[in-house]
Amino acid sequence: SSAPAPIPATLFPGDGIGPEIAEAVKQVFQAAEVPIEWEEHYVGDQIDPRTQSFLTWESLESVRRNKVGLKGPMATPIGKGHRSLNLTLRKELNLYANVRPCYSLPGYKTRYDNVNLITIRENTEGEYSGLEHQVVRGVVESIKIITRQASLRVAEYAFHYAKIHGRERVSAIHKANIMQKTDGLFLKCCREVAEKYPEITYEEVVIDNCCMMLVKNPALFDVLVMPNLYGDIISDLCAGLIGGLGLTPSCNIGEGGIALAEAVHGSAPDIAGKNLANPTALLLSAVTMLRHLELYDKAERIQNAILTTIAEGKYRTADLGGSSSTTDFTKAICSHL
Amino acid sequence: SSAPAPIPATLFPGDGIGPEIAEAVKQVFQAAEVPIEWEEHYVGDQIDPRTQSFLTWESLESVRRNKVGLKGPMATPIGKGHRSLNLTLRKELNLYANVRPCYSLPGYKTRYDNVNLITIRENTEGEYSGLEHQVVRGVVESIKIITRQASLRVAEYAFHYAKIHGRERVSAIHKANIMQKTDGLFLKCCREVAEKYPEITYEEVVIDNCCMMLVKNPALFDVLVMPNLYGDIISDLCAGLIGGLGLTPSCNIGEGGIALAEAVHGSAPDIAGKNLANPTALLLSAVTMLRHLELYDKAERIQNAILTTIAEGKYRTADLGGSSSTTDFTKAICSHL
Ligand SMILES: CC(C)[C@H](C(=O)O)[C@@H](O)C(=O)O
Ligand SMILES: CC(C)[C@H](C(=O)O)[C@@H](O)C(=O)O
Repeated sequence: SSAPAPIPATLFPGDGIGPEIAEAVKQVFQAAEVPIEWEEHYVGDQIDPRTQSFLTWESLESVRRNKVGLKGPMATPIGKGHRSLNLTLRKELNLYANVRPCYSLPGYKTRYDNVNLITIRENTEGEYSGLEHQVVRGVVESIKIITRQASLRVAEYAFHYAKIHGRERVSAIHKANIMQKTDGLFLKCCREVAEKYPEITYEEVVIDNCCMMLVKNPALFDVLVMPNLYGDIISDLCAGLIGGLGLTPSCNIGEGGIALAEAVHGSAPDIAGKNLANPTALLLSAVTMLRHLELYDKAERIQNAILTTIAEGKYRTADLGGSSSTTDFTKAICSHL
Repeated sequence: SSAPAPIPATLFPGDGIGPEIAEAVKQVFQAAEVPIEWEEHYVGDQIDPRTQSFLTWESLESVRRNKVGLKGPMATPIGKGHRSLNLTLRKELNLYANVRPCYSLPGYKTRYDNVNLITIRENTEGEYSGLEHQVVRGVVESIKIITRQASLRVAEYAFHYAKIHGRERVSAIHKANIMQKTDGLFLKCCREVAEKYPEITYEEVVIDNCCMMLVKNPALFDVLVMPNLYGDIISDLCAGLIGGLGLTPSCNIGEGGIALAEAVHGSAPDIAGKNLANPTALLLSAVTMLRHLELYDKAERIQNAILTTIAEGKYRTADLGGSSSTTDFTKAICSHL
């Protein structure tokens, strides 16, 4: 029997610790015999005028062609004449939903047990419109845009996600008591979609109250869907509950079935190249990519190997209180496959 | 020697549990011999055209005249043709800074010990401008306004507060990596004021990162100053760390030295009139009002009596896991004066 053709996937190792943690993913995928062929692309050293950023057109084309990719941390170089690399990716690839699962890691103790949440963030508009101007000297305004199209799209994604993952409740997070028109439209769209999913409980929670409830009792929530900035805030808050951004995966969903998974932590230039970085967030992100490709068995096996390694506690990187190198931690994961 | 003339102060008992918890404040103040004479005002049953809300012009005039007041929860009646009562108060009285202290209550266990934070929120502009409109069908926008004047004013207040209360650090919370002009102006103003307070450490923290750090280690922060919506979100998050809005005081500072203290929890209509409500947030808010009046001894004594009563644990209301009535809890506080 001939082996199935490998699936091409784009890999952006990113900056700082990016290449080391991307190497960890490659090794774990190899050990697990995942049928993925990586197509690596680096952030350039010149601004590509076609993208207005250090990301080249070719690297974006690679994701468009493969429809699936993995991205390490990218530090936007300081200076003028270019956009944030993260925002460029979201915009150019129309990555409309950002999915951030957040669950307690067995054996890694924080103040919270049994966190098990999914934040689904609208990723293209809202407070991230980039529309800002000075009205008169000393008075500036920025414009938040909410559209029916983008709100319906992310709401559809959230309910569909809840359904296929056996989740019971979707909470729409908003501040419609103050922003009646913008957040009001977002809620209206969520309600419309909710009607098509009678088996899923739908509720609406004001963002300030949501944050208070999350720190008091995160078990009250299941799937949360919300406009851009609230998603930015709440996904970080949730990550904090279980130990931080070094442990939480993220996956961006785009039109036409694109999935770009990513570690959302920083590039940690202080420890770059020292074999000290924790690859967990990128590894767990790669697992979400496998699920998107419906490679459920591989996804399950890799996730179990990561969680078992952390739970056993013998091999942990410094950020988790251990003294393992990136490569030893990675080897331990491979040994559990 | 003749007793000093009592100080007039406005009291809005508010709705739902408001009258019961306001009664608790009156009793505790009487027991502590606080030289305050309350001028009570109720939310009307008709919209006052001069305020466009159920708050009457006379009640606003009372605060303007007395320059000091205390407000229970006010549920904005549902319907058309009027504004939120909270927003009306902020707007009409130009309550530009909202100060929300948040500290762990001795003996009342949550997941966090030793929380001791002050959130100072810009209270008049930002995302609360009320400027929203439909651009075309299915596309709505809301406008966030940041002004140099309001930003300098709240920054001045925050640094002054830090100085007179012996606080060491002020953190400005923002999302200027995305909203470069609006949040950028806010930060610029904070930096200008920070230069005048070299003895106070100044730092800038992005809101998403701030939320993650707050849930991981709130002891990293001291005084936090920020635009309106971030203050709304972060003050609730902080309240969650120590047990909820039933335990946290709030005080609004306006031009011309006005101070309107308030409980920020809801009016809890389900338990209204049943002698079950917890008056702690309103009592601690009344204490901030006394500090504003420089009645430091009275403030200290009352705060100690409240904290001692909660710490002893014999008299606690149901929301704190006890079975005391509002009146028994209040009597216990009075007995500690
Ligand atoms: C780096 C920044 C632009 C980005 C955002 O605000 O979306 C980050 O916080 C994130 O959550 O991916
Ligand atoms: C009730 C609501 C309008 C208000 C706000 O958003 O400011 C409340 O959440 C608060 O924090 O005082």
